[in-house]
Amino acid sequence: MPTYQAPLQDYKFIIEDVLNTYQDYATIPQFSDVNSELMDSILSEAGRFAEQEIQPLNQPGDIEGCRVENGEVFTPKGYKEVSQKYLEGGWTQLSESTQYGGQGLPYLLNGAIGEMNLSACAAFAIYSTRDGSIAAIEKNASQDIKDKYLPKLVEGIWGGPMCMSEPHCGSDLGLLRTKADPQSDGSFSISGTKMFITGGDADLGENSIMLVLARIQDAPQGIKGISLFIVPKFLVNEDGSLGERNNTSVGSIEHKMGLHGSATCVMNYDNAKGFLIGTENKGMSAMFAMFAMVNRSRFLIGQQGTALAAVAYQNAAQYALERVQMRSLTGPKNPDKAADSIIVHPDVRRMLLTQRSFVEGSRALNLYVAKLFDELDHHPDVERKKHCQSLLDLLTPICKGFNTEMGWECVNHGLQVFGGHGYIRENGMEQFVRDARAAAIYEGTTGIQALDLLARKVLANKGETLQIFTGEINQFCQENKDHEMVGKLATELKAATAQWLAITMNVGMAAMKNPNDLGAASVDYLMYSGYVTLAYFWVRMAKAAADKKQSTPFTQAKLQTAQFYFDRILPRTATLEKTIQAGSDSLMEMNEEAFVL
Amino acid sequence: MPTYQAPLQDYKFIIEDVLNTYQDYATIPQFSDVNSELMDSILSEAGRFAEQEIQPLNQPGDIEGCRVENGEVFTPKGYKEVSQKYLEGGWTQLSESTQYGGQGLPYLLNGAIGEMNLSACAAFAIYSTRDGSIAAIEKNASQDIKDKYLPKLVEGIWGGPMCMSEPHCGSDLGLLRTKADPQSDGSFSISGTKMFITGGDADLGENSIMLVLARIQDAPQGIKGISLFIVPKFLVNEDGSLGERNNTSVGSIEHKMGLHGSATCVMNYDNAKGFLIGTENKGMSAMFAMFAMVNRSRFLIGQQGTALAAVAYQNAAQYALERVQMRSLTGPKNPDKAADSIIVHPDVRRMLLTQRSFVEGSRALNLYVAKLFDELDHHPDVERKKHCQSLLDLLTPICKGFNTEMGWECVNHGLQVFGGHGYIRENGMEQFVRDARAAAIYEGTTGIQALDLLARKVLANKGETLQIFTGEINQFCQENKDHEMVGKLATELKAATAQWLAITMNVGMAAMKNPNDLGAASVDYLMYSGYVTLAYFWVRMAKAAADKKQSTPFTQAKLQTAQFYFDRILPRTATLEKTIQAGSDSLMEMNEEAFVL
Repeated sequence: MPTYQAPLQDYKFIIEDVLNTYQDYATIPQFSDVNSELMDSILSEAGRFAEQEIQPLNQPGDIEGCRVENGEVFTPKGYKEVSQKYLEGGWTQLSESTQYGGQGLPYLLNGAIGEMNLSACAAFAIYSTRDGSIAAIEKNASQDIKDKYLPKLVEGIWGGPMCMSEPHCGSDLGLLRTKADPQSDGSFSISGTKMFITGGDADLGENSIMLVLARIQDAPQGIKGISLFIVPKFLVNEDGSLGERNNTSVGSIEHKMGLHGSATCVMNYDNAKGFLIGTENKGMSAMFAMFAMVNRSRFLIGQQGTALAAVAYQNAAQYALERVQMRSLTGPKNPDKAADSIIVHPDVRRMLLTQRSFVEGSRALNLYVAKLFDELDHHPDVERKKHCQSLLDLLTPICKGFNTEMGWECVNHGLQVFGGHGYIRENGMEQFVRDARAAAIYEGTTGIQALDLLARKVLANKGETLQIFTGEINQFCQENKDHEMVGKLATELKAATAQWLAITMNVGMAAMKNPNDLGAASVDYLMYSGYVTLAYFWVRMAKAAADKKQSTPFTQAKLQTAQFYFDRILPRTATLEKTIQAGSDSLMEMNEEAFVL
Repeated sequence: MPTYQAPLQDYKFIIEDVLNTYQDYATIPQFSDVNSELMDSILSEAGRFAEQEIQPLNQPGDIEGCRVENGEVFTPKGYKEVSQKYLEGGWTQLSESTQYGGQGLPYLLNGAIGEMNLSACAAFAIYSTRDGSIAAIEKNASQDIKDKYLPKLVEGIWGGPMCMSEPHCGSDLGLLRTKADPQSDGSFSISGTKMFITGGDADLGENSIMLVLARIQDAPQGIKGISLFIVPKFLVNEDGSLGERNNTSVGSIEHKMGLHGSATCVMNYDNAKGFLIGTENKGMSAMFAMFAMVNRSRFLIGQQGTALAAVAYQNAAQYALERVQMRSLTGPKNPDKAADSIIVHPDVRRMLLTQRSFVEGSRALNLYVAKLFDELDHHPDVERKKHCQSLLDLLTPICKGFNTEMGWECVNHGLQVFGGHGYIRENGMEQFVRDARAAAIYEGTTGIQALDLLARKVLANKGETLQIFTGEINQFCQENKDHEMVGKLATELKAATAQWLAITMNVGMAAMKNPNDLGAASVDYLMYSGYVTLAYFWVRMAKAAADKKQSTPFTQAKLQTAQFYFDRILPRTATLEKTIQAGSDSLMEMNEEAFVL
């Protein structure tokens, strides 16, 4: 049975020593009294909750799965109880606005706690992520709607699923058909079917506040005719109490490869009552509302890559220490035993360090991004906010796309370390693989993230946003080029960053001549960007480790893993450099029909 | 529901036009009358059987799985009936020796039919692969034993599982504990537990002839004290009829990630009667016996990579033609529809062509290897046999290791093309992923294959074996360097081959100083070798396509896919070149305990 241990030491190291969080937060009034002691105690308690309460749900929930009865979802045994405890602990409200009952603490906490919960039981943790919906309502709805819905969403006793996809459209929401007819009372009558709705319904909360994309009658075709609505499962009375049951129901839940404890619903709306968020018939405002939630949700899905790789790594490393099989290539290491631990084998270490270097590197990226959300929301300086928005625009598709692809690779390394025992359900490694596979798909596939990154975030403003980030990297490299222990890595990073910019320019030029070159390069460009981004965080971590007053096994491991990353992972850019610039001819020349020859 | 179509045109093209099989077989007396007509009709009938009989077992068998009752295995509904039909069709005997009731046809047929059966239903097809066991008995057992067991194994009414792994040892068979006590009648009394025994028992055959590795009392420790035994489920009387039930039983079957229709058994032997194959107490002879089966089984597992990628590709390509979502980057391709087919997107094509270029490239490799087995077994020229053995030694770990890793990557591309629909069981794509995951593990993990390739096959004889293969490639490149359509590819291939040799020499030198450098390089070296090997088969296919009298959509697709392979897949060697030569320091420096920090 797999185990889980919260990586508290690593969080503390990244938050304090790498990101210098408390110095930075001192300039933000809302967080001026956030300090190490406070954060440590919260994270330590959250870690305990993840290890002791959430993790035990993971394997049994996978076996049991969810079920639907009479149009409602029932989650696996124990989900409801642990969810209730989580709520009572106030965990859902940590970083939410105090105006609606939140505790107003940094979102950075969610960056760590989200990962821990996902590592402990991904299917369970997904239910508690309402951040995107809350952000969408908070930023776009009328005060009435905010007052009515936000307090209980923040408290966590109401769920807030996002209802976008339909059977015939996932990535292309312009095609959606769910319709919204205006009613005399100012509400809308919503009819249609939504699909792939994560937690569309669940027995964990008292109500489900669905955010539904729909098309108002006579709205323009395509993406510009879409509006965003709140559709509550139970209508909410003026005094906040629950009223009539709305005309919504769960048609079915999907039988999926993994995440069995997370109900993926087909939702039916049959003249259900809905309430507009933003302006009627102005698709763009709904879309803006959607983007507010999309950035957060994509970040949260990106965390799944890190989180599942993290728990898979922990278990694989432990197994590699315990499993004895064959001898070291350099002679017996445990001559008294019949064989050595498999951790003596370079290739086992290669798999483990690939996992470790991704997990810790992407963890640093995630926490950096979570901190940007804090500054975006609360920093007093408008220029700084703008700067953060730019960095978030750039880094969100990398968090989502790169982290989920690498997370997938890494959970598979975890399984592989177990050999045949990894393929067996009891050992739990194959569940991590099945659970992790969804993350590269939902909330926009890797292909969608890659187009978002390359076309919208990088090329649309001629690389300006990219240069904000590479500027930060270059400054860091400049400052540390002569650092005794990390100067060499900083110099390599600088070269990789220069190459990133050069490739970007080449792709941009090629794309102007042939837009297909952009699509052909996009996923490889996303991965290239991810490798350089993680290299940046690895040098930052290595520097922070080197600068610690005392060398410890932890700081040594940081320095060693950084070196591994530069030796064995960053070189992946060598191939990507070629494929990004290979153009699109050999992709586009084949006739469509020839693909099925 | 996924579909399957046998790739008959591709088999014919590879067998005839690429491998010039019939010219070559004309020099082998046993195959001198094998011709295109005969092979085509057999393959076409086998394809029909795979499509119509085997494929329908795939999804229901995954859902139902196997079960154990009273120490015996029951396979999913339909397995027994189809297995019976397969037997009656004579399919198990095609390439087996006529001496034991086989039809003496080329093993090459199995190279194609095995792939088709595995594509149609991997879990089912695995039961019918007795080739390794038959080879082990045929090459090593006494005439008595051969006469007693081979005819029914060849006929297929008896199964022949290989029983090697034990709970505490998989890769390291030297640790095994199953013991064999000599009895006065010349038989042995076998006691112990075997694990991960594929088809250890099944209700498909009348008897199960287990090949069991065990240690005779007072045998030397480790690998040199192992002997090989036949342990029949039912003892076989002198007249060939079934006698007493032997003391063997199924302890349990594993709950696995995939291949649910294939029973993976824990086998218990409680003073079961066994019969020695080869010489008593001379471990090496048993090991040789084992190698005879290991080469074939590894080849067959390698085929699983190709086969599952092939069927995943077919379904993904069909889906990409049908699914409409978003517009082409170069403007609408189907302006009358609300969106274009997703096959207009370069990134979707990148995923599809990655699959296609692997599937067809590895198919050519597999058929080439199957043909080598034929020549090894039947060629009249001893020198040619030796040459074939060398090539087989080199290519078997590539077939197994590279094909299963790439197969795994490719089934995942197939799932990804389906987006969210790929994660749903009904659509069948996630089953291909779950089923394919085992192939990189059993019969020796990728890490084991990589050490076998680099240490035993390449470096142990100072690259001599490798040079036999690269010599063949270079000769081909030399002959075709001025070819109008493939000269450029041949020149690139020549450079890649030279680089392969150069890297080999560097790794060899490094490994002499530090054996860990060998282990650190091994898997990347395996993959490098695979990419160059497939490049060779792609130029051969491109040349054969270019030289066809008439250009057709099929030959055009071959040329286009070859170009894609060189543009987008072969450049993966650029990264591997660096990581292979990165040494082992950053792998080995970390303390064992630090891995669980």
